[in-house]
Amino acid sequence: MKKEKPTILVVNDDGIDAPGIRALISVMQELGKVVVVAPDGPQSGMGHAITIAKPLRLDKVDLYPGIEMYKSSGTPVDCVKLAVNQVFKGKNPDLCVSGINHGLNHSISVIYSGTMSAAVEGAVEGIPSIGFSLDDFTYSADFSACLPYVKAIAEQVLENGLTRGTLLNVNFPNIRDIKGIRICRQANAKFAEEFDERQDPHQRNYYWLTGVFQNNDKGEDTDVWALEHGYVSIVPVQFDMTAHHTIPQLNSWKFDVKER
Amino acid sequence: MKKEKPTILVVNDDGIDAPGIRALISVMQELGKVVVVAPDGPQSGMGHAITIAKPLRLDKVDLYPGIEMYKSSGTPVDCVKLAVNQVFKGKNPDLCVSGINHGLNHSISVIYSGTMSAAVEGAVEGIPSIGFSLDDFTYSADFSACLPYVKAIAEQVLENGLTRGTLLNVNFPNIRDIKGIRICRQANAKFAEEFDERQDPHQRNYYWLTGVFQNNDKGEDTDVWALEHGYVSIVPVQFDMTAHHTIPQLNSWKFDVKER
Repeated sequence: MKKEKPTILVVNDDGIDAPGIRALISVMQELGKVVVVAPDGPQSGMGHAITIAKPLRLDKVDLYPGIEMYKSSGTPVDCVKLAVNQVFKGKNPDLCVSGINHGLNHSISVIYSGTMSAAVEGAVEGIPSIGFSLDDFTYSADFSACLPYVKAIAEQVLENGLTRGTLLNVNFPNIRDIKGIRICRQANAKFAEEFDERQDPHQRNYYWLTGVFQNNDKGEDTDVWALEHGYVSIVPVQFDMTAHHTIPQLNSWKFDVKER
Repeated sequence: MKKEKPTILVVNDDGIDAPGIRALISVMQELGKVVVVAPDGPQSGMGHAITIAKPLRLDKVDLYPGIEMYKSSGTPVDCVKLAVNQVFKGKNPDLCVSGINHGLNHSISVIYSGTMSAAVEGAVEGIPSIGFSLDDFTYSADFSACLPYVKAIAEQVLENGLTRGTLLNVNFPNIRDIKGIRICRQANAKFAEEFDERQDPHQRNYYWLTGVFQNNDKGEDTDVWALEHGYVSIVPVQFDMTAHHTIPQLNSWKFDVKER
Protein backbone atom coordinates (compact mmCIF):
# COMPACT_ATOMS: atom_id res chain seq x y z
CA MET A 1 0.00 0.00 0.00
CA LYS A 2 1.27 3.44 -0.90
CA LYS A 3 0.99 6.29 1.55
CA GLU A 4 -1.60 8.97 0.96
CA LYS A 5 -1.77 10.85 -2.34
CA PRO A 6 1.29 13.04 -2.93
CA THR A 7 0.86 16.82 -3.01
CA ILE A 8 2.18 18.48 -6.15
CA LEU A 9 3.02 22.15 -6.69
CA VAL A 10 2.59 23.26 -10.32
CA VAL A 11 4.22 26.49 -11.48
CA ASN A 12 5.32 28.00 -14.81
CA ASP A 13 6.63 31.18 -16.43
CA ASP A 14 4.18 31.62 -19.32
CA GLY A 15 1.40 32.63 -16.93
CA ILE A 16 -1.49 30.86 -15.22
CA ASP A 17 -3.66 30.82 -18.36
CA ALA A 18 -1.07 29.22 -20.68
CA PRO A 19 -2.00 25.99 -22.48
CA GLY A 20 1.29 24.43 -21.28
CA ILE A 21 0.40 24.64 -17.59
CA ARG A 22 -3.06 23.27 -18.34
CA ALA A 23 -1.45 20.22 -19.97
CA LEU A 24 0.85 19.77 -16.97
CA ILE A 25 -2.06 20.06 -14.50
CA SER A 26 -4.02 17.41 -16.42
CA VAL A 27 -1.21 14.87 -15.90
CA MET A 28 -0.45 15.81 -12.30
CA GLN A 29 -4.12 15.36 -11.33
CA GLU A 30 -3.67 11.66 -12.12
CA LEU A 31 -0.73 11.45 -9.70
CA GLY A 32 -1.75 13.47 -6.66
CA LYS A 33 -3.33 16.52 -5.10
CA VAL A 34 -2.47 19.52 -7.26
CA VAL A 35 -1.89 23.09 -6.06
CA VAL A 36 -1.07 25.73 -8.69
CA VAL A 37 0.78 28.99 -7.96
CA ALA A 38 1.65 30.77 -11.20
CA PRO A 39 2.38 34.26 -12.50
CA ASP A 40 -0.59 36.40 -13.57
CA GLY A 41 1.13 37.12 -16.89
CA PRO A 42 4.10 36.11 -19.06
CA GLN A 43 7.45 35.93 -17.21
CA SER A 44 9.67 34.29 -19.81
CA GLY A 45 13.38 35.05 -19.54
CA MET A 46 13.03 36.18 -15.92
CA GLY A 47 15.78 33.79 -14.80
CA HIS A 48 16.12 33.59 -11.03
CA ALA A 49 14.75 37.10 -10.44
CA ILE A 50 13.00 37.80 -7.16
CA THR A 51 10.88 40.84 -6.27
CA ILE A 52 12.32 42.86 -3.41
CA ALA A 53 11.57 46.50 -4.27
CA LYS A 54 7.84 46.04 -4.84
CA PRO A 55 5.12 44.23 -2.88
CA LEU A 56 3.61 41.04 -4.28
CA ARG A 57 0.03 40.00 -4.89
CA LEU A 58 -1.21 36.45 -4.33
CA ASP A 59 -4.86 35.88 -5.22
CA LYS A 60 -6.91 32.71 -5.21
CA VAL A 61 -8.52 32.01 -8.58
CA ASP A 62 -11.00 29.47 -9.87
CA LEU A 63 -9.80 28.78 -13.37
CA TYR A 64 -10.13 24.98 -13.53
CA PRO A 65 -12.89 23.46 -11.39
CA GLY A 66 -11.72 21.48 -8.37
CA ILE A 67 -8.10 22.70 -8.46
CA GLU A 68 -6.60 24.94 -5.76
CA MET A 69 -5.04 27.78 -7.76
CA TYR A 70 -3.37 31.09 -7.03
CA LYS A 71 -2.01 33.76 -9.34
CA SER A 72 0.76 36.13 -8.34
CA SER A 73 2.16 39.40 -9.64
CA GLY A 74 5.64 38.01 -8.94
CA THR A 75 8.28 36.13 -10.90
CA PRO A 76 8.29 32.34 -11.22
CA VAL A 77 10.76 32.15 -8.30
CA ASP A 78 8.50 34.42 -6.20
CA CYS A 79 5.63 32.02 -6.96
CA VAL A 80 7.57 29.08 -5.49
CA LYS A 81 8.54 31.09 -2.40
CA LEU A 82 4.91 32.23 -1.94
CA ALA A 83 3.68 28.65 -2.41
CA VAL A 84 6.08 27.22 0.18
CA ASN A 85 5.50 29.93 2.77
CA GLN A 86 1.93 31.17 2.28
CA VAL A 87 0.13 28.19 0.75
CA PHE A 88 1.93 25.08 2.06
CA LYS A 89 3.01 27.07 5.13
CA GLY A 90 6.29 25.25 5.61
CA LYS A 91 5.04 21.70 5.00
CA ASN A 92 6.65 21.10 1.61
CA PRO A 93 4.79 19.40 -1.23
CA ASP A 94 6.14 16.03 -2.43
CA LEU A 95 6.91 17.32 -5.91
CA CYS A 96 7.33 20.65 -7.71
CA VAL A 97 6.79 20.70 -11.49
CA SER A 98 7.27 23.72 -13.73
CA GLY A 99 5.98 24.23 -17.27
CA ILE A 100 5.25 22.83 -19.67
CA ASN A 101 7.12 25.72 -21.22
CA HIS A 102 6.21 26.96 -24.68
CA GLY A 103 9.76 26.79 -26.06
CA LEU A 104 12.97 24.84 -25.39
CA ASN A 105 15.06 25.36 -22.28
CA HIS A 106 18.04 23.18 -23.12
CA SER A 107 21.75 23.89 -22.75
CA ILE A 108 22.63 27.39 -21.46
CA SER A 109 18.90 28.37 -21.45
CA VAL A 110 18.70 26.88 -17.97
CA ILE A 111 20.10 30.13 -16.56
CA TYR A 112 17.74 32.49 -18.47
CA SER A 113 14.56 30.47 -18.14
CA GLY A 114 11.86 31.37 -15.64
CA THR A 115 10.51 27.83 -16.00
CA MET A 116 13.80 26.29 -14.94
CA SER A 117 14.50 28.91 -12.25
CA ALA A 118 11.16 28.02 -10.61
CA ALA A 119 12.24 24.37 -10.57
CA VAL A 120 15.68 25.35 -9.22
CA GLU A 121 13.96 27.30 -6.43
CA GLY A 122 11.85 24.24 -5.64
CA ALA A 123 15.07 22.25 -5.24
CA VAL A 124 16.63 24.99 -3.09
CA GLU A 125 13.56 24.64 -0.85
CA GLY A 126 14.27 20.90 -0.62
CA ILE A 127 11.41 19.76 -2.89
CA PRO A 128 12.07 17.15 -5.63
CA SER A 129 11.60 19.35 -8.71
CA ILE A 130 11.30 19.02 -12.48
CA GLY A 131 11.10 21.60 -15.28
CA PHE A 132 9.40 20.60 -18.56
CA SER A 133 9.73 22.41 -21.91
CA LEU A 134 8.58 21.72 -25.48
CA ASP A 135 10.31 22.83 -28.65
CA ASP A 136 7.39 25.03 -29.77
CA PHE A 137 7.06 28.60 -28.50
CA THR A 138 3.67 29.25 -30.10
CA TYR A 139 0.44 29.58 -28.12
CA SER A 140 -1.03 26.72 -30.14
CA ALA A 141 1.77 24.26 -29.23
CA ASP A 142 0.53 20.66 -29.09
CA PHE A 143 1.65 19.02 -25.83
CA SER A 144 -0.15 15.69 -26.32
CA ALA A 145 2.92 13.67 -27.38
CA CYS A 146 4.79 14.85 -24.24
CA LEU A 147 2.19 13.80 -21.71
CA PRO A 148 3.01 10.08 -21.38
CA TYR A 149 6.65 11.07 -20.76
CA VAL A 150 5.73 13.81 -18.29
CA LYS A 151 3.78 11.23 -16.31
CA ALA A 152 6.45 8.51 -16.45
CA ILE A 153 9.21 10.93 -15.37
CA ALA A 154 7.16 12.41 -12.53
CA GLU A 155 6.30 8.89 -11.34
CA GLN A 156 9.98 7.96 -11.19
CA VAL A 157 10.82 11.10 -9.21
CA LEU A 158 7.95 10.46 -6.77
CA GLU A 159 9.14 6.86 -6.36
CA ASN A 160 12.92 7.38 -6.17
CA GLY A 161 13.32 11.00 -5.08
CA LEU A 162 16.26 13.04 -6.35
CA THR A 163 19.78 13.48 -4.99
CA ARG A 164 19.69 16.46 -2.62
CA GLY A 165 20.71 19.70 -4.30
CA THR A 166 19.66 18.48 -7.76
CA LEU A 167 16.57 18.69 -10.00
CA LEU A 168 15.68 17.65 -13.56
CA ASN A 169 15.55 19.71 -16.74
CA VAL A 170 13.32 17.86 -19.23
CA ASN A 171 12.97 19.01 -22.85
CA PHE A 172 10.75 17.55 -25.58
CA PRO A 173 11.31 17.56 -29.34
CA ASN A 174 8.28 18.80 -31.27
CA ILE A 175 7.48 15.51 -33.03
CA ARG A 176 4.73 12.89 -32.82
CA ASP A 177 6.96 9.83 -32.62
CA ILE A 178 9.33 10.46 -29.74
CA LYS A 179 12.09 7.83 -29.74
CA GLY A 180 12.58 7.58 -25.99
CA ILE A 181 14.44 9.26 -23.12
CA ARG A 182 18.14 10.14 -22.86
CA ILE A 183 19.91 11.24 -19.67
CA CYS A 184 22.23 14.04 -20.83
CA ARG A 185 24.63 16.75 -19.87
CA GLN A 186 23.95 20.40 -20.72
CA ALA A 187 25.50 21.19 -24.14
CA ASN A 188 28.20 23.84 -24.03
CA ALA A 189 26.42 26.33 -26.29
CA LYS A 190 25.34 29.96 -26.16
CA PHE A 191 23.16 32.54 -27.84
CA ALA A 192 24.73 34.85 -30.39
CA GLU A 193 22.85 38.06 -29.76
CA GLU A 194 21.98 40.77 -32.14
CA PHE A 195 20.13 43.91 -31.23
CA ASP A 196 17.52 45.18 -33.63
CA GLU A 197 18.08 48.95 -33.43
CA ARG A 198 15.10 51.23 -34.13
CA GLN A 199 14.12 54.84 -33.68
CA ASP A 200 11.04 55.93 -31.75
CA PRO A 201 8.77 58.78 -32.92
CA HIS A 202 10.90 61.14 -30.77
CA GLN A 203 14.12 60.26 -32.65
CA ARG A 204 15.55 58.29 -29.75
CA ASN A 205 17.07 54.86 -30.40
CA TYR A 206 15.82 51.68 -28.81
CA TYR A 207 16.81 48.03 -29.13
CA TRP A 208 15.08 44.66 -29.33
CA LEU A 209 17.10 41.74 -28.00
CA THR A 210 17.25 38.86 -30.46
CA GLY A 211 19.39 35.76 -30.20
CA VAL A 212 20.38 32.83 -32.39
CA PHE A 213 21.25 29.60 -30.57
CA GLN A 214 24.80 28.61 -31.45
CA ASN A 215 26.07 25.13 -30.61
CA ASN A 216 29.59 23.94 -31.26
CA ASP A 217 29.34 21.05 -28.79
CA LYS A 218 28.86 17.91 -30.87
CA GLY A 219 28.82 15.52 -27.88
CA GLU A 220 26.31 12.68 -28.26
CA ASP A 221 25.79 12.87 -24.50
CA THR A 222 24.32 16.41 -24.72
CA ASP A 223 20.70 17.56 -24.54
CA VAL A 224 21.06 19.27 -27.93
CA TRP A 225 22.08 15.98 -29.58
CA ALA A 226 19.24 14.05 -27.94
CA LEU A 227 16.59 16.57 -29.04
CA GLU A 228 17.94 16.79 -32.59
CA HIS A 229 17.71 13.00 -32.81
CA GLY A 230 14.11 12.76 -31.59
CA TYR A 231 14.66 11.93 -27.92
CA VAL A 232 13.38 13.52 -24.72
CA SER A 233 16.42 15.01 -22.93
CA ILE A 234 16.76 14.86 -19.15
CA VAL A 235 19.62 16.89 -17.67
CA PRO A 236 20.19 16.64 -13.91
CA VAL A 237 20.85 20.19 -12.69
CA GLN A 238 22.58 21.38 -9.52
CA PHE A 239 22.47 24.81 -7.89
CA ASP A 240 25.92 24.60 -6.29
CA MET A 241 27.73 26.64 -8.94
CA THR A 242 31.21 26.20 -7.41
CA ALA A 243 33.81 25.29 -10.06
CA HIS A 244 35.50 22.88 -7.64
CA HIS A 245 38.04 21.74 -10.26
CA THR A 246 39.67 25.18 -10.45
CA ILE A 247 40.25 25.66 -6.70
CA PRO A 248 43.79 24.13 -6.64
CA GLN A 249 44.89 26.40 -9.50
CA LEU A 250 43.53 29.55 -7.81
CA ASN A 251 45.28 28.55 -4.59
CA SER A 252 48.61 28.84 -6.44
CA TRP A 253 48.03 32.52 -7.29
CA LYS A 254 50.08 35.17 -5.47
CA PHE A 255 47.97 38.24 -4.73
CA ASP A 256 49.95 41.45 -4.51
CA VAL A 257 47.81 43.47 -2.07
CA LYS A 258 49.29 46.96 -1.71
CA GLU A 259 48.08 49.50 0.83
CA ARG A 260 46.62 52.57 -0.87
CA MET B 1 56.96 44.77 -22.36
CA LYS B 2 53.26 44.28 -21.81
CA LYS B 3 50.85 44.64 -24.69
CA GLU B 4 48.62 47.68 -24.89
CA LYS B 5 46.37 48.65 -21.99
CA PRO B 6 43.61 46.10 -21.35
CA THR B 7 39.99 47.11 -21.96
CA ILE B 8 37.71 46.61 -18.98
CA LEU B 9 33.91 46.46 -18.96
CA VAL B 10 32.40 47.63 -15.66
CA VAL B 11 28.79 46.75 -14.82
CA ASN B 12 26.64 46.45 -11.68
CA ASP B 13 23.11 45.92 -10.44
CA ASP B 14 22.71 48.85 -8.05
CA GLY B 15 22.56 51.33 -10.92
CA ILE B 16 25.02 53.59 -12.69
CA ASP B 17 25.02 56.22 -9.92
CA ALA B 18 25.78 53.83 -7.02
CA PRO B 19 28.86 54.53 -4.87
CA GLY B 20 29.95 50.89 -5.32
CA ILE B 21 30.41 51.18 -9.08
CA ARG B 22 32.27 54.48 -8.61
CA ALA B 23 34.72 52.69 -6.28
CA LEU B 24 35.17 49.89 -8.81
CA ILE B 25 35.75 52.36 -11.68
CA SER B 26 38.43 54.16 -9.66
CA VAL B 27 40.47 50.96 -9.34
CA MET B 28 39.92 49.76 -12.90
CA GLN B 29 41.13 53.10 -14.28
CA GLU B 30 44.55 52.23 -12.84
CA LEU B 31 44.57 48.93 -14.75
CA GLY B 32 43.21 49.74 -18.19
CA LYS B 33 40.74 51.50 -20.45
CA VAL B 34 37.37 51.48 -18.73
CA VAL B 35 33.96 51.27 -20.40
CA VAL B 36 30.87 51.32 -18.17
CA VAL B 37 27.47 49.90 -19.16
CA ALA B 38 25.14 49.85 -16.18
CA PRO B 39 21.41 49.90 -15.38
CA ASP B 40 19.70 53.31 -15.11
CA GLY B 41 18.24 52.29 -11.73
CA PRO B 42 18.39 49.58 -9.05
CA GLN B 43 18.22 46.00 -10.35
CA SER B 44 19.05 44.02 -7.24
CA GLY B 45 17.69 40.48 -7.12
CA MET B 46 17.16 40.37 -10.88
CA GLY B 47 19.14 37.15 -11.19
CA HIS B 48 19.82 36.16 -14.78
CA ALA B 49 16.74 37.95 -16.14
CA ILE B 50 16.81 39.23 -19.71
CA THR B 51 14.36 41.61 -21.37
CA ILE B 52 12.52 40.06 -24.30
CA ALA B 53 9.00 41.49 -24.16
CA LYS B 54 10.05 45.16 -24.06
CA PRO B 55 12.56 47.21 -26.05
CA LEU B 56 15.75 48.40 -24.36
CA ARG B 57 17.31 51.82 -24.08
CA LEU B 58 21.06 52.38 -24.23
CA ASP B 59 22.16 55.99 -23.77
CA LYS B 60 25.61 57.51 -23.53
CA VAL B 61 26.09 59.53 -20.35
CA ASP B 62 28.83 61.76 -19.02
CA LEU B 63 28.81 61.06 -15.30
CA TYR B 64 32.55 60.83 -14.57
CA PRO B 65 34.81 62.93 -16.80
CA GLY B 66 36.95 60.97 -19.25
CA ILE B 67 35.11 57.66 -18.86
CA GLU B 68 33.04 56.11 -21.65
CA MET B 69 29.72 55.36 -19.96
CA TYR B 70 26.30 54.11 -20.99
CA LYS B 71 23.14 53.56 -18.99
CA SER B 72 20.47 51.09 -19.98
CA SER B 73 16.85 50.44 -19.06
CA GLY B 74 17.67 46.71 -19.04
CA THR B 75 18.75 44.18 -16.44
CA PRO B 76 22.41 43.62 -15.49
CA VAL B 77 22.57 40.72 -17.97
CA ASP B 78 21.05 42.92 -20.70
CA CYS B 79 23.80 45.46 -19.97
CA VAL B 80 26.51 42.89 -20.64
CA LYS B 81 24.82 41.75 -23.86
CA LEU B 82 24.42 45.37 -25.01
CA ALA B 83 28.06 46.09 -24.12
CA VAL B 84 29.38 43.12 -26.07
CA ASN B 85 27.21 43.67 -29.12
CA GLN B 86 26.57 47.43 -29.36
CA VAL B 87 29.57 48.97 -27.62
CA PHE B 88 32.47 46.53 -28.13
CA LYS B 89 30.77 45.27 -31.31
CA GLY B 90 32.00 41.71 -31.03
CA LYS B 91 35.61 42.50 -30.01
CA ASN B 92 35.44 41.37 -26.39
CA PRO B 93 37.03 43.40 -23.58
CA ASP B 94 39.90 41.77 -21.67
CA LEU B 95 38.02 41.78 -18.38
CA CYS B 96 34.45 42.18 -17.11
CA VAL B 97 33.97 43.33 -13.51
CA SER B 98 30.63 43.71 -11.75
CA GLY B 99 29.89 45.63 -8.56
CA ILE B 100 31.04 46.54 -6.08
CA ASN B 101 27.67 45.40 -4.78
CA HIS B 102 26.14 47.06 -1.76
CA GLY B 103 25.49 43.80 0.13
CA LEU B 104 26.90 40.25 0.24
CA ASN B 105 26.45 37.78 -2.60
CA HIS B 106 27.93 34.68 -1.01
CA SER B 107 26.63 31.12 -0.97
CA ILE B 108 23.24 30.61 -2.68
CA SER B 109 22.94 34.37 -3.38
CA VAL B 110 24.93 33.76 -6.56
CA ILE B 111 21.70 32.67 -8.27
CA TYR B 112 19.56 35.64 -7.13
CA SER B 113 22.15 38.38 -7.56
CA GLY B 114 22.11 40.74 -10.52
CA THR B 115 25.74 41.57 -9.78
CA MET B 116 26.80 37.94 -10.10
CA SER B 117 24.50 37.22 -13.05
CA ALA B 118 26.18 40.06 -14.97
CA ALA B 119 29.56 38.44 -14.26
CA VAL B 120 28.18 35.02 -15.25
CA GLU B 121 26.97 36.54 -18.54
CA GLY B 122 30.43 37.99 -19.09
CA ALA B 123 31.87 34.49 -18.72
CA VAL B 124 29.23 33.03 -21.06
CA GLU B 125 30.42 35.60 -23.62
CA GLY B 126 33.95 34.29 -23.12
CA ILE B 127 35.28 37.28 -21.10
CA PRO B 128 37.31 36.68 -17.89
CA SER B 129 34.81 37.98 -15.32
CA ILE B 130 34.65 38.85 -11.62
CA GLY B 131 31.78 39.91 -9.35
CA PHE B 132 32.62 41.95 -6.22
CA SER B 133 30.32 42.46 -3.21
CA LEU B 134 30.70 44.06 0.23
CA ASP B 135 28.86 43.06 3.39
CA ASP B 136 27.09 46.43 3.70
CA PHE B 137 23.86 47.11 1.82
CA THR B 138 23.61 50.78 2.80
CA TYR B 139 24.13 53.64 0.37
CA SER B 140 26.90 54.98 2.61
CA ALA B 141 28.92 51.72 2.53
CA ASP B 142 32.67 52.34 2.80
CA PHE B 143 34.52 50.46 0.05
CA SER B 144 38.01 51.76 0.84
CA ALA B 145 39.28 48.63 2.63
CA CYS B 146 38.24 46.49 -0.35
CA LEU B 147 40.09 48.43 -3.02
CA PRO B 148 43.62 47.00 -2.60
CA TYR B 149 42.09 43.51 -2.87
CA VAL B 150 39.92 44.42 -5.86
CA LYS B 151 43.06 45.59 -7.65
CA ALA B 152 45.20 42.58 -6.69
CA ILE B 153 42.52 40.10 -7.75
CA ALA B 154 41.84 41.86 -11.06
CA GLU B 155 45.60 41.97 -11.76
CA GLN B 156 45.87 38.22 -11.25
CA VAL B 157 42.93 37.55 -13.58
CA LEU B 158 44.40 39.85 -16.25
CA GLU B 159 47.74 38.05 -15.90
CA ASN B 160 46.60 34.42 -15.64
CA GLY B 161 43.15 34.42 -17.24
CA LEU B 162 40.47 32.09 -15.94
CA THR B 163 39.61 28.52 -16.85
CA ARG B 164 37.05 28.66 -19.66
CA GLY B 165 33.49 28.45 -18.43
CA THR B 166 34.36 29.85 -15.00
CA LEU B 167 34.39 33.24 -13.25
CA LEU B 168 35.08 34.55 -9.74
CA ASN B 169 32.63 35.51 -6.99
CA VAL B 170 34.49 37.81 -4.57
CA ASN B 171 32.92 38.93 -1.28
CA PHE B 172 34.37 41.32 1.32
CA PRO B 173 33.73 41.40 5.07
CA ASN B 174 32.78 44.85 6.32
CA ILE B 175 35.89 45.43 8.48
CA ARG B 176 38.95 47.65 8.33
CA ASP B 177 41.58 44.97 8.95
CA ILE B 178 40.94 42.30 6.37
CA LYS B 179 43.00 39.20 7.19
CA GLY B 180 43.68 38.07 3.62
CA ILE B 181 42.13 36.03 0.81
CA ARG B 182 40.65 32.52 0.92
CA ILE B 183 39.70 30.45 -2.13
CA CYS B 184 36.40 28.81 -1.13
CA ARG B 185 33.46 26.73 -2.19
CA GLN B 186 29.91 28.11 -2.05
CA ALA B 187 28.39 27.28 1.37
CA ASN B 188 25.34 25.03 1.19
CA ALA B 189 22.92 27.54 2.74
CA LYS B 190 19.61 29.13 1.85
CA PHE B 191 17.25 31.93 2.75
CA ALA B 192 14.36 31.18 5.10
CA GLU B 193 11.66 33.41 3.69
CA GLU B 194 8.85 35.07 5.45
CA PHE B 195 6.26 37.22 3.78
CA ASP B 196 5.14 40.34 5.55
CA GLU B 197 1.40 40.35 4.82
CA ARG B 198 -0.38 43.72 4.72
CA GLN B 199 -3.64 45.17 3.55
CA ASP B 200 -3.90 48.01 1.04
CA PRO B 201 -6.44 50.87 1.40
CA HIS B 202 -8.82 48.81 -0.78
CA GLN B 203 -8.79 45.83 1.64
CA ARG B 204 -6.73 43.66 -0.68
CA ASN B 205 -3.75 41.75 0.74
CA TYR B 206 -0.21 42.21 -0.47
CA TYR B 207 3.13 40.75 0.58
CA TRP B 208 6.69 41.94 1.09
CA LEU B 209 9.36 39.30 0.56
CA THR B 210 11.80 39.12 3.46
CA GLY B 211 14.46 36.50 4.02
CA VAL B 212 16.83 35.44 6.75
CA PHE B 213 20.07 33.78 5.64
CA GLN B 214 20.28 30.31 7.16
CA ASN B 215 23.54 28.40 7.10
CA ASN B 216 23.98 24.88 8.43
CA ASP B 217 27.19 24.29 6.46
CA LYS B 218 30.06 24.60 8.94
CA GLY B 219 32.80 23.78 6.41
CA GLU B 220 35.95 25.85 6.90
CA ASP B 221 36.39 25.76 3.11
CA THR B 222 33.19 27.79 2.55
CA ASP B 223 32.73 31.45 1.70
CA VAL B 224 30.52 31.94 4.76
CA TRP B 225 33.30 30.69 7.07
CA ALA B 226 35.91 32.91 5.39
CA LEU B 227 33.79 36.06 5.68
CA GLU B 228 32.83 35.34 9.30
CA HIS B 229 36.54 35.02 10.10
CA GLY B 230 37.59 38.28 8.46
CA TYR B 231 38.81 37.03 5.08
CA VAL B 232 37.93 37.99 1.52
CA SER B 233 36.20 34.97 -0.05
CA ILE B 234 36.80 33.99 -3.67
CA VAL B 235 34.54 31.27 -5.05
CA PRO B 236 35.21 30.07 -8.61
CA VAL B 237 31.79 29.77 -10.30
CA GLN B 238 30.78 27.74 -13.36
CA PHE B 239 27.69 28.11 -15.53
CA ASP B 240 27.50 24.45 -16.57
CA MET B 241 24.81 23.45 -14.06
CA THR B 242 24.84 19.73 -15.00
CA ALA B 243 24.90 17.50 -11.91
CA HIS B 244 27.27 15.07 -13.62
CA HIS B 245 27.57 12.86 -10.53
CA THR B 246 23.90 11.83 -10.68
CA ILE B 247 23.84 10.72 -14.34
CA PRO B 248 24.70 7.04 -13.66
CA GLN B 249 21.91 6.77 -11.09
CA LEU B 250 19.32 8.32 -13.44
CA ASN B 251 20.42 5.93 -16.17
CA SER B 252 19.31 3.04 -13.94
CA TRP B 253 15.70 4.31 -13.79
CA LYS B 254 13.00 2.43 -15.74
CA PHE B 255 10.49 4.84 -17.25
CA ASP B 256 7.04 3.35 -17.72
CA VAL B 257 5.78 5.35 -20.72
CA LYS B 258 2.17 4.39 -21.44
CA GLU B 259 0.27 5.56 -24.52
CA ARG B 260 -2.71 7.70 -23.57
